[in-house]
Amino acid sequence: MAKSRFEYVRDFELPDPLLPSAYIVVRIDGRGFHKFSDTHTFEKPNDVRALNLMDRAAKSVMDEYEDVVLAFGESDEYSFLIRRQSQLYNRRRSKINSSIVSLFTSSYVYHWPTYLPNTPLQYPPSFDSRVILYPSAKEVRDYFSWRQADTHINNLQNTCFWCLVKSGLSTKEANKTLQGTDSKAKNEMLFSRFAINYNHIPPQFRKGSTLVRSPPPDLDENTSDVKPVLVPGDRKGKRRPYEGTTGEVIVVWEDIIGDRFWEDRPWLLPP
Amino acid sequence: MAKSRFEYVRDFELPDPLLPSAYIVVRIDGRGFHKFSDTHTFEKPNDVRALNLMDRAAKSVMDEYEDVVLAFGESDEYSFLIRRQSQLYNRRRSKINSSIVSLFTSSYVYHWPTYLPNTPLQYPPSFDSRVILYPSAKEVRDYFSWRQADTHINNLQNTCFWCLVKSGLSTKEANKTLQGTDSKAKNEMLFSRFAINYNHIPPQFRKGSTLVRSPPPDLDENTSDVKPVLVPGDRKGKRRPYEGTTGEVIVVWEDIIGDRFWEDRPWLLPP
Amino acid sequence: MAKSRFEYVRDFELPDPLLPSAYIVVRIDGRGFHKFSDTHTFEKPNDVRALNLMDRAAKSVMDEYEDVVLAFGESDEYSFLIRRQSQLYNRRRSKINSSIVSLFTSSYVYHWPTYLPNTPLQYPPSFDSRVILYPSAKEVRDYFSWRQADTHINNLQNTCFWCLVKSGLSTKEANKTLQGTDSKAKNEMLFSRFAINYNHIPPQFRKGSTLVRSPPPDLDENTSDVKPVLVPGDRKGKRRPYEGTTGEVIVVWEDIIGDRFWEDRPWLLPP
Amino acid sequence: MAKSRFEYVRDFELPDPLLPSAYIVVRIDGRGFHKFSDTHTFEKPNDVRALNLMDRAAKSVMDEYEDVVLAFGESDEYSFLIRRQSQLYNRRRSKINSSIVSLFTSSYVYHWPTYLPNTPLQYPPSFDSRVILYPSAKEVRDYFSWRQADTHINNLQNTCFWCLVKSGLSTKEANKTLQGTDSKAKNEMLFSRFAINYNHIPPQFRKGSTLVRSPPPDLDENTSDVKPVLVPGDRKGKRRPYEGTTGEVIVVWEDIIGDRFWEDRPWLLPP
Repeated sequence: MAKSRFEYVRDFELPDPLLPSAYIVVRIDGRGFHKFSDTHTFEKPNDVRALNLMDRAAKSVMDEYEDVVLAFGESDEYSFLIRRQSQLYNRRRSKINSSIVSLFTSSYVYHWPTYLPNTPLQYPPSFDSRVILYPSAKEVRDYFSWRQADTHINNLQNTCFWCLVKSGLSTKEANKTLQGTDSKAKNEMLFSRFAINYNHIPPQFRKGSTLVRSPPPDLDENTSDVKPVLVPGDRKGKRRPYEGTTGEVIVVWEDIIGDRFWEDRPWLLPP
Repeated sequence: MAKSRFEYVRDFELPDPLLPSAYIVVRIDGRGFHKFSDTHTFEKPNDVRALNLMDRAAKSVMDEYEDVVLAFGESDEYSFLIRRQSQLYNRRRSKINSSIVSLFTSSYVYHWPTYLPNTPLQYPPSFDSRVILYPSAKEVRDYFSWRQADTHINNLQNTCFWCLVKSGLSTKEANKTLQGTDSKAKNEMLFSRFAINYNHIPPQFRKGSTLVRSPPPDLDENTSDVKPVLVPGDRKGKRRPYEGTTGEVIVVWEDIIGDRFWEDRPWLLPP
Repeated sequence: MAKSRFEYVRDFELPDPLLPSAYIVVRIDGRGFHKFSDTHTFEKPNDVRALNLMDRAAKSVMDEYEDVVLAFGESDEYSFLIRRQSQLYNRRRSKINSSIVSLFTSSYVYHWPTYLPNTPLQYPPSFDSRVILYPSAKEVRDYFSWRQADTHINNLQNTCFWCLVKSGLSTKEANKTLQGTDSKAKNEMLFSRFAINYNHIPPQFRKGSTLVRSPPPDLDENTSDVKPVLVPGDRKGKRRPYEGTTGEVIVVWEDIIGDRFWEDRPWLLPP
Repeated sequence: MAKSRFEYVRDFELPDPLLPSAYIVVRIDGRGFHKFSDTHTFEKPNDVRALNLMDRAAKSVMDEYEDVVLAFGESDEYSFLIRRQSQLYNRRRSKINSSIVSLFTSSYVYHWPTYLPNTPLQYPPSFDSRVILYPSAKEVRDYFSWRQADTHINNLQNTCFWCLVKSGLSTKEANKTLQGTDSKAKNEMLFSRFAINYNHIPPQFRKGSTLVRSPPPDLDENTSDVKPVLVPGDRKGKRRPYEGTTGEVIVVWEDIIGDRFWEDRPWLLPP
């Protein structure tokens, strides 16, 4: 079997390394999730079971890849931040991109019965993904602000839309009613017509889900900079800065546009 | 909510179009499948249930993407051929790569209980994938020859190895016994020591699985070139060449190194 | 001097190999040549001295790089074909692109006094360049057809325009006169108003310049396929196919859209 | 002339935009300059005429491209820093790379007779070039430190080597003498054997050439940050920060590894 005769085809697999030291964001998006959510009768405007399942799938990614230090999700999309010094898969673009979207998808299908026990999965859902590089911390901040601002805008719009539809309007009428309204008008509509205070809607819907790791309990609270922590299993007590790669992954539904979230976790965006 | 202030971050999503008219191959590989197959007690050297599940996942990809005209799988890997003129996702590399690996993964987990009903899935498996371009038909032929030659080499090696182990050798002893043996010696070992005629082993194990579509029944059998076929639903009877994008997906376990397979399906590699 | 402390910056120089076996075209274009030709009072619509200088610069590229087997130039642009199997600079995109445009530019300035002896060069001209890949011979043919068709269209337009201007029209009037006219009308205008038979205009202006190498005299004339030739300096008389990489570079002003040019030189586009 | 039939070949020209906001470095290198310097009998170890010509060619690049805010050269190489917010040619990699190397080459040949009036240019020299991205200011600093450290190392080595050769050693003997010697030993050799105090060698040879622009005279001297300057021709007296893109290009032979050079020109590496 003349194996060697064919092996030259490997030379066509070209290298695709990502720029060193740049921040890496991987964003996955559901493919055809409008139809998918209809088929599986997701609650509108938000299905908390489906959102929790998305969070669970994102957690699988962070459990597997310690260099993913932050994740943010809304609706059928999730963004993952890989720290800038990461050498994951030698920073090969396709390898990183495909491994993350595959694991996310796998976990989503695997955990489906736990999160939607009474809704059999009708067909295999899928996601696409892309890799985006950002040179500096500012742009990473703005990226996640962009996604959370989007979460708010979409949720406000969808909340109004489904209130109108549930009150008897056709989808066409609902869209027409909302056309051209700004945030303030939408808030007032919710309050006056549907007795809903938008700010009382669960933060999970308004803010999206943010996944980070819990830093070690002995983290030095007195410094606002990156803090040295005890390396587990290091008998000599050598200390090194906490980099966000260890600790339990937790979900928070907080504002990540303001400074507070990031100031509390300076290791996410080291200088 | 100042959405526009953040939207500039979209400019960092750079275009990644693939070279037009080049053949596109997407190859997915199981991540950590050595451990995965151990955990799920796959039969050695080949677990027909797991291989059929791989084929089922590959079929999902071909059912979804008509431009995938051929797929070849062995062990924990699968290669997909996208026809050269495809405009799938405007030939965006990441979009194509991620969508295919995600759907494959999803289908693999979704169909697991059907193919391995008595083996609960312990954790979500995942795959990576890459896109490879080939300028000409010759290189595509050689690519698939390379994979099928690899199938043969690995299967012969593994068949010998597991016969030795099942006969009482340690894995270390088995490896030592096989060290330096060529194909002929391995065939003789199987025959003389284990009464196995390698050529009687199921072709699925020896040849891997090839997925193609069945051409329409009225395909002109007299021409060896690409043949015009009736376009379904076209009342005027307009005819156009069959391109391998329609018809039922079938699995075959055939030699694809020789010319016969390709001569029977000239639409796979149009000039 | 802590050299090693800084050397990590080399890691940011990422690989950029071109797809193997694809045909490589490098096209250079003059930057700001409208102004450049005005400053140096180039004759309109064609300055034969400037065109010959372009050809001379292209010849320098072919003299230096044997893998450049064909070049085609018109106006202030030149296209170079690098044979598909070339390993020039390990097919590094930037290296190939920059080396060719640099040598072309250098030769253009170096030979200027020879070709325009009475026109001192006022400032250094420059060119940009790009690399384009084509998977198959058909696309390479069509690329050069595109450029030669462009040569014809531009030359016919410019010939009419400058005839009108030299006859007393303003450039605005000349443009208005030509607006919306097709090739036939332009030919008739030249003939009836200016007594010019377009086909008698020098082929250098109508067809552009094509550079190829002369094959060895002992090339087998009886085969239309690639022919074996005597390798120079090989005493044993070993013969191998002529690949267009040796022999004197010559300029021709021929039609390269039709088949004849390519049939006469089968080595340019090997299967 | 069926132009449209061929125009599809343009689709093979794929986009190649550089990552936004990253610092861009273009480095050009002489091709075959060992032979070139021999042919033109450059003085060893440094030919001040040839170095000045390199500086002149680099100045042409900065005069043409205002976004090139810094250049550093030694021997037959030059590095250009393009500011991170530059939109030059929409940040197209090949366009930027080829335009700069072409203009540099052109200027080098154009100005040759001025700088080496008694040395006729024997053949057209050429350069290659590459584009390198750096995410942050630190890496840009380290890049230029790398090049200046290299200048020092090479110059010390070459100075010793040519002293030995001029004193009568063969090149082989000179190399052997220098093998394994460190900086200190080389300095001592120069002093004790050749009465040369290395620090008295012209800084142009020891430090390389750095090109920057002179800031406007009314630049605010009291702030260490980027300073607002009067925009020329703006009657309203609107002030904006100086960005290093205007003002006369000057050559300095200074240390650029330490902080001083950069602190004096905070606009080169804005946060």
